[in-house]
Amino acid sequence: MKDGYAVAVVGATGAVGEKMISVLAQRQFPVKVLRLFASERSAGKTVSFLDEKITVENLKTSSLEGINIALFSAGASVSRAFAARFTQAGAVVIDNSSAFRMDEETPLVVPEVNPNAARFHHGIIANPNCSTIQLVVAINLIHRRVGIKRLIVTALQSVSGTGREALVELLDQSKAILAGEKSEHTVYPHQIAFNLLPHIGSFLETGYTEEEMKLVNETRKILGDETIRVCATCVRVPVPVSHSEAVTIETRDALSPNEARDILMESPGVILVDEPTAATYPLPVYAAGKDEVFVGRVRRDISAPSSINMWVVSDNLRKGAALNAIQIAELLIKNNWL
Amino acid sequence: MKDGYAVAVVGATGAVGEKMISVLAQRQFPVKVLRLFASERSAGKTVSFLDEKITVENLKTSSLEGINIALFSAGASVSRAFAARFTQAGAVVIDNSSAFRMDEETPLVVPEVNPNAARFHHGIIANPNCSTIQLVVAINLIHRRVGIKRLIVTALQSVSGTGREALVELLDQSKAILAGEKSEHTVYPHQIAFNLLPHIGSFLETGYTEEEMKLVNETRKILGDETIRVCATCVRVPVPVSHSEAVTIETRDALSPNEARDILMESPGVILVDEPTAATYPLPVYAAGKDEVFVGRVRRDISAPSSINMWVVSDNLRKGAALNAIQIAELLIKNNWL
Repeated sequence: MKDGYAVAVVGATGAVGEKMISVLAQRQFPVKVLRLFASERSAGKTVSFLDEKITVENLKTSSLEGINIALFSAGASVSRAFAARFTQAGAVVIDNSSAFRMDEETPLVVPEVNPNAARFHHGIIANPNCSTIQLVVAINLIHRRVGIKRLIVTALQSVSGTGREALVELLDQSKAILAGEKSEHTVYPHQIAFNLLPHIGSFLETGYTEEEMKLVNETRKILGDETIRVCATCVRVPVPVSHSEAVTIETRDALSPNEARDILMESPGVILVDEPTAATYPLPVYAAGKDEVFVGRVRRDISAPSSINMWVVSDNLRKGAALNAIQIAELLIKNNWL
Repeated sequence: MKDGYAVAVVGATGAVGEKMISVLAQRQFPVKVLRLFASERSAGKTVSFLDEKITVENLKTSSLEGINIALFSAGASVSRAFAARFTQAGAVVIDNSSAFRMDEETPLVVPEVNPNAARFHHGIIANPNCSTIQLVVAINLIHRRVGIKRLIVTALQSVSGTGREALVELLDQSKAILAGEKSEHTVYPHQIAFNLLPHIGSFLETGYTEEEMKLVNETRKILGDETIRVCATCVRVPVPVSHSEAVTIETRDALSPNEARDILMESPGVILVDEPTAATYPLPVYAAGKDEVFVGRVRRDISAPSSINMWVVSDNLRKGAALNAIQIAELLIKNNWL
């Protein structure tokens, strides 16, 4: 398609939807027509894309004919209700929700890690969870080289992962507390400003959260290795954008920190930022707005024989969501897998 | 001493020194005379203690006669320079710095964990590092019952652990950023507001920080077991008070989450806060100002056969510093070990 593709963004007025629109423009994605969908509440708004003003359409009532690629980011229930209508109308859906990620039929794709999985889609490709994407980008080549047996991850996740209303809550609460006023919370069950919440997603009977189990299950599916054992703690932190992960990686073959750094420097999508004595390590504020996964604090885990620690930071709205989805679309186009 | 003790606080105008003075009052510690010491810069200031106004003395020039108990919290170099002068004048020094913690001669004491170690002091007893204290209070009884083989700790540490100037920096930076103004940093090497810094203390050649190695070495010394393997990542977080720790505990004998909770409920100094489906778990904002170590999110580590995860939060200025030091003093008095 020389003229480009008809692209839809579903959930166009959300934090990730907005980011998708800006990433499409930044990457000069071959867009012939951009159609934006949201709920009735947001329909009729106009959104800028390059030189155009595009009117947001009501997802429930609009025609879906002629769309080639639909980027979904409106939550799992919207994906479950509407993805099939897009595929039936001829679109390939790239879905940022958890709705289809663990379906056996649905590829779960990070282009730097398992691009070939995208080939055999049945109309829907799932975009992994934000905290999973940055983890697998960081560890994939290490796994291929020396075999990962076990991962212990503490994920420190920014509020933008919850959505725009959570970012507003963080900022409003921070202002109120700094002014000595009473702060309010509606998005989170407790104050998030100047606090930490060890609670992301619903709790399961096991004591884990859904978010923690996404890291476990999605990591295995993307790396294509069900023997990897994963244990995760997910903590919401008062940071606007970028997730950070303290990761312990037990490997089959021993790996020195220098060997790990060499592998990381070869790893697509990874930037090694590891000069700690110069106070140089990945930071949420510096990763925000960037495309790569930043890795530092690489060191031998002194508590186990073949184990490495590292600190992994990435923009959860970009590589963790919008950018990865658009990279999947680029992968489909490049390989004629649409 | 029926009338009480002559107590000195060295570093009386610092964040922990101030907290020591308020904890002495709150616990009705048997103070006959309170003497406050600081550097020349702060000497001459007056500080309230109960109904008194006490003038801060210059540490370098004041007489040290007659002091029974000296609580030091003015940094390792001050402790190294002045502790011996207090002990020579007849005082027992309880030192909150890292100066003597790993000396073989010096007991390193958490009263709920290893009270008997305090008995054989030679004039100086070391108070452990904040992040170590709350960890060992949480895990001690588990170690006694089922044997801890390995600990993997991600410590999320509040800015008050750095000192009062860091708290000011967090609040000033937060205000500037919220107002859209340029923020400044002098205490930390990078912005701390709305950010995370994987950097506490100086970096060693191994890639670990001094703070991380304190958790390793002090934990072993306090639990009296050099076979325990410990791996730590310490991260400074934009929280005013309370440290939080995501802890993975590999045990010799298997332990179910319910058994772990039973042990935690018996553990002195621990409060179990673990009803996650009711959004009830330990939080920094709720632990601040309290004496106990709060433990929740107890669950089976699904990545290893005999391993448990938990989330441990405590006020780093109180149990992590001032309170523990004063509990050591109480222990000495109760047992006639002064």
